Amino acid sequence: MTSEIFTVSGMTCQHCVASVTEEVAALPGVRQVAIDLPTGSVTVVAERRLDAMALRQAIDEAGYELMVPVGR
Amino acid sequence: MTSEIFTVSGMTCQHCVASVTEEVAALPGVRQVAIDLPTGSVTVVAERRLDAMALRQAIDEAGYELMVPVGR
Repeated sequence: MTSEIFTVSGMTCQHCVASVTEEVAALPGVRQVAIDLPTGSVTVVAERRLDAMALRQAIDEAGYELMVPVGR
Repeated sequence: MTSEIFTVSGMTCQHCVASVTEEVAALPGVRQVAIDLPTGSVTVVAERRLDAMALRQAIDEAGYELMVPVGR
């Protein structure tokens, strides 16, 4: 089991949270999704590492954006 | 005059907004900073395009992260 944390931008309310949760939860192997609305932080517990492309597409489909810190 | 919009993660309250505003406003050429807390969206009006590295450092100094969408 793996746990990953990433940031999604654009979520402003519990409807946004529900949409993203639903899309991410539908990805193969995902067991649990927890979203912190104020920070946009999304924690996913899954059977294996998520496919980054599939994850981005799922977030996209919900109408939001998967974000990464600007390179350092 | 240019206007740029970018995303900052981790802001949860008006103190966060004030810290980021202060750091970004101190960058050379910046005239105006407007932050939308729920989305983390930061709009900057400046005399010229911001230096990306200086911008990232300013956000960093305030204790937050400058984010970009995952490549598409």
